[in-house]
This record gives sequence, structure tokens and C-alpha cells, in this order.
Amino acid sequence: MPQELRAVEWTGSGLALIDQTLLPQRTELRSVHDVDALVDAIQRLVVRGAPAIGAAGGYGVALALIEGQRKGWSEAEVRAAVARVREARPTAVNLMVCVDRVMTRFEEGLDAVLEEAAAVQREDVAANRAMGAFGADWLLERVGGDRPLRILTHCNTGALATAGWGTALGVVRELHARGRLEVVYADETRPLLQGSRLTAWELVQEGIPHHVQVDGAAAGTILRGEVDAAIVGADRIAANGDTANKVGTVGVALACADAGIPFLVAAPTTTVDLATKTGDDIHIELRAEEEVLEWAGVRTAPAESRGHNPAFDVTPGRLITGLVTERGVLEISAGELPGDRLKQ
Amino acid sequence: MPQELRAVEWTGSGLALIDQTLLPQRTELRSVHDVDALVDAIQRLVVRGAPAIGAAGGYGVALALIEGQRKGWSEAEVRAAVARVREARPTAVNLMVCVDRVMTRFEEGLDAVLEEAAAVQREDVAANRAMGAFGADWLLERVGGDRPLRILTHCNTGALATAGWGTALGVVRELHARGRLEVVYADETRPLLQGSRLTAWELVQEGIPHHVQVDGAAAGTILRGEVDAAIVGADRIAANGDTANKVGTVGVALACADAGIPFLVAAPTTTVDLATKTGDDIHIELRAEEEVLEWAGVRTAPAESRGHNPAFDVTPGRLITGLVTERGVLEISAGELPGDRLKQ
Repeated sequence: MPQELRAVEWTGSGLALIDQTLLPQRTELRSVHDVDALVDAIQRLVVRGAPAIGAAGGYGVALALIEGQRKGWSEAEVRAAVARVREARPTAVNLMVCVDRVMTRFEEGLDAVLEEAAAVQREDVAANRAMGAFGADWLLERVGGDRPLRILTHCNTGALATAGWGTALGVVRELHARGRLEVVYADETRPLLQGSRLTAWELVQEGIPHHVQVDGAAAGTILRGEVDAAIVGADRIAANGDTANKVGTVGVALACADAGIPFLVAAPTTTVDLATKTGDDIHIELRAEEEVLEWAGVRTAPAESRGHNPAFDVTPGRLITGLVTERGVLEISAGELPGDRLKQ
Repeated sequence: MPQELRAVEWTGSGLALIDQTLLPQRTELRSVHDVDALVDAIQRLVVRGAPAIGAAGGYGVALALIEGQRKGWSEAEVRAAVARVREARPTAVNLMVCVDRVMTRFEEGLDAVLEEAAAVQREDVAANRAMGAFGADWLLERVGGDRPLRILTHCNTGALATAGWGTALGVVRELHARGRLEVVYADETRPLLQGSRLTAWELVQEGIPHHVQVDGAAAGTILRGEVDAAIVGADRIAANGDTANKVGTVGVALACADAGIPFLVAAPTTTVDLATKTGDDIHIELRAEEEVLEWAGVRTAPAESRGHNPAFDVTPGRLITGLVTERGVLEISAGELPGDRLKQ
């Protein structure tokens, strides 16, 4: 991905988002100048990936202020608009954390809000770079002697999913930069194909060898010994390490545990929600049935069939070998729990 | 599914196959009058499902004889044509078993061959009925007290996949007939969507409540306690119980083991290949990359991406609670191995 291309960019008067629903066929920017458009962009996954949504949400506070000025809103109306941004996707904790952080400077006015939103974005990139280094160090120490690694990933956690560089895919990019990556198995990630559309697109930009496979192939590929480690992102991590991530993640974790290879989660510490004790407390977003029952507007299942479409699943901490954060790696299945190690 | 509708039907001069690539949008019969057309139909999955392929393969011997008469083939040419049918899908053992069985009457001529092929088909339906009863008895004894069951299945194992009634889906139909079925979770089964296209279509014909979900959702649905048991079919079963089935199956098995619910395989004993000692000896068919990288002819992954498309995976016997056959249920993970129990 060209360094200048960013999933989320403040233009001075609004947001420019890469419309991720159109990739890999077309790379189009979508201009967002009001709160309704931002909420729609988040819900339709024009912008997706917990850290990228967080960055966009931070700027959403600025958008609400500017729109409020333009339309003569009361402060209560501006705050209500911010609340709508904050709640646009219930599972992603970064969105709430980033909005709340930027809101600490709400009383100081637009410039302060923009400064804080930019800091959120800048710090996310720095966190990703740190995660990449910690994750690569950890993997190279634990796995594979001096041969290049074969890594499986699920969904998209790269530059498109973050403010830049990537979380799980940042670790992959770091391994590649060190000459220690053989191949990536990218799960296609149904129903919306973030793996084949977005991760594969990023890997092509980076010149990283990769195979796209159906999600159902992940467990078999792992059990056949074709993978050295799996690494994924996270949407919310409970105090005990239980992790909500894209639907299909826990199946990858189960296969890694059975095969005895590491299963890593890479996520900034803002993804850890200490108020959420365990995965049982995580609300799982159910998305529209049509995402499962149709393809590009054409029905693939019978008209009478119903769809079950959870956007996420919860991987128990006991299946997570390591949580890679910008502060280092917590070995969760060995008992290093976020609730103990990440107290503020 | 209306009782008169059969996936594989001998018309007197050739085969009539329901073109399963067109379901659920259209129900069309495809006439097959020569060996090339049969091999093509098997490879393009016009007819699919190990027992249905077996039934079609049995009639393939008759097709080869009739075509040979028409075209003046030598016996060696007829036998070579039969061999091409036999090898059309390398993982499905039923195809080879059924062709070999019908070939035992090759010397007796066309009428004997047709008689044997019809017997294969008739016995498959009878075996499925027996499996349905054995599987339903076993499940109702082990699971759920007296409430109706919630069953997860993967791929299609119903009337379309067999000579009639179904294997795993036959157990589901039997539970439904006994009033003991609450709901079916049907994995969509990428890349070719046999679950959403075919299983859902059969469930609609039967009036069975069901939810179609992406394959990645299976593990989460199971771990959340929404499923009482999973039941799938098989393409080949090794002497130690290791089972090759549609890609994605082993992930379902891992989730069932973790959740402590039964994982059943339903397959006729013809699916057991005692010459195959373990799953390591099973050849896994790799299908065309385009099945993963394209959708209805439209590329979904970048042009530069490669696809990894194993059609099957192998579930270790230790993860299989029960193998439901027409002779009863073998509790494989408890040590009842096909190699010991099914010696001829």
C-alpha cells in the first residue's frame, strides 16, 4: 500500500475515507461532511477495522461540532450526534474509547478536538509499529529456527483496518521486512470477504506471497502442518483475555491449539476493556441476514430460508497464546491476564 | 423434496441428473448419454455427494457398454472408459467401490450391469433409512432429555447427495419425522455453497426450520451453546476412523470436542476404506483456484492473488463421537474403530 494512502484522512473540513466496499476492483475516496454520513459509512463498512473506526470516530467529534455550527445546533444536539457516532458499531470498543478521549477536550472547542483526534491517529500508527516489532520478535524466538515463517490470518487487520501499518498484518509486514516470511494464508472471511478483497489487496501492494482460502480450509491447513502460527486482530478484549473478533476467529484458535502452534492476537491496549470481565459480557452484533443469503444482490439460498449472521465470535483466553500490544506480549493462555497486567 | 425427484435416475437409455449447479434458482434435469458427459458432470458437481456419485458411477458402467456398442469400441476401450469414470473424483471412495461392484458383472453383459447398478442405488436408499433410525435413536438417547434438538450440519448430505433420503440429513429428517427437531444450522459451505443452495433447498421442501450461516460462524454458534450435536457426511473413512469430508468439517469437529457435544459422521459402510490405514493416506483433491478467487465469473480477489482450494479435510477419529452406518453406530473416539468392527 503506497505510504500516502490512508484509510482515514482529515481533509481540513471533513473526512476522506477509502471506500473499502469497492476494493479491490476500485480505489475510491468517499468524502464525509456530516455525522449521518459517518454513521452510515461505519455501519456499511466503508470504513472498518476497530482501530480505523476508532480514528474515524475521533474525527467524528469534530464533524459534529462543524455540522452543529452550520446548522445552529444546541450543545445537547451536538452531544447527541457524537453519541450516535459512538454507538455506530456496538462490538468495537476502540470506537467508544477514541470518541470518549476526544470528548475530554470538547469544551476547548474545535481546534483542541482536532488536535486530539490527530493524536489518536498518530499514536495508533506508532502503536502498530511497536506491535509489529514485539510480535515479530516473539514469533522468531519461539517458532521456526531460522527459516521463514508461514502465517495464517483471518479478516483484514492492515493499513486499511487501522490508522496505518496494521495490527496483525503489521506483524506480518515486519516479518516480511526482516526477510523472515515465506507465505501468508489469508482466510477469505465470509460474508463480506475482507480477507480476499482487502488483506489480499494489501499483500499484493507489499509484494508478499499469499494464498487466499475459504474460511473452512483454515483448520485443515493448520492441522496438516502447513502453518507456523496464526495471528489475528481484535474488536474487544475482556479483562480475562477473552477476545471478540471477526466471525471465524475462534475456529482458527481451536485448530492452532489442537496443532500446538501459537495463536496470537495483535491489538492496541485501547482494545482491552477492563470493565468487561469475560467474553460472556461482550455483546455480539447480529448483522442483516441478506449478507449470508445473497451475493451481490442475487439470492443464493432459497427465498424461504433464514440467515444467522453474527459479525463476531469470542475466543476464550485459554486458546490465545499471546496478546501482542504496543507495550509487549502477554501470554494469556499461560496466565498473563490483561486485567492483571494492564491496570491503568 | 418430492418423493419422485431423484438426483440420479436411469431412464432406460441414459442417466437423468438434477443439475445441482443450478439449484436453488432452477430445477433442471441433465441427460447424460456418454462417458465424457458423465465425467464432466461429476467433475463440475452437476452430481455430487459421495453416495450419489457412487450411484451415478454404477450406471456409468452401463453407459460405457452402450456407448461402446454404438461406437464399435473394443472391450479394452470400454474398460478404459469405465476407468475414467472410476477416477473422476479421487477422494470419494464410494465411486470406486460402486464401479468395482458393478464391474463384477461386466462379463454378463448390459442387463446384468444395469441390474447391479439398480441394486446399488436401491441399497443406498435402504442404508440411508437405517442410518436415519440408528442416528436418531443414538442422539435421542444421549442428548437433550425430551426437548427437540438443535442440529448443525455442513455441506449437503441429503437426497441430492445420495440415491435418496440422505445420510447426515437423513438423520435430521428422521428426527423431524419423530417431532424431535427444533432447528438446523446449515453451514453455507464455501466455495460452492452446497449448504445454502442445496441443504437449505431440501430443508425448505421438508418444511424444516433452519438458519443458513457462514462456515466461520459454526464454531462460535457451537461454543455459545446454541447447538446440541453436529452431524456430517463423509467421502472416505480410514480404518482408524479418520474421515475425509467437505473442507470445513474438521473445524466443526474441533468446536464440538471443545464444547463437549457429539460430533457424528453418517455414511454407509461402503465409505469405509479398510485399505486406507489413517487419514494421512487420503489424497486430498485440490480444485481450481478460481472457485475461491471468483464469484459467478467476477473476480473478488486481486488479479495477482493465488488461491488455495482443498476440496476436503481430514477429521481425526479421536474427534468423531459416533460413526452412524446402516449397521449401527460406532463410537470412534471411544475406541470402536472401523478397522476392527467392519472387517468383511
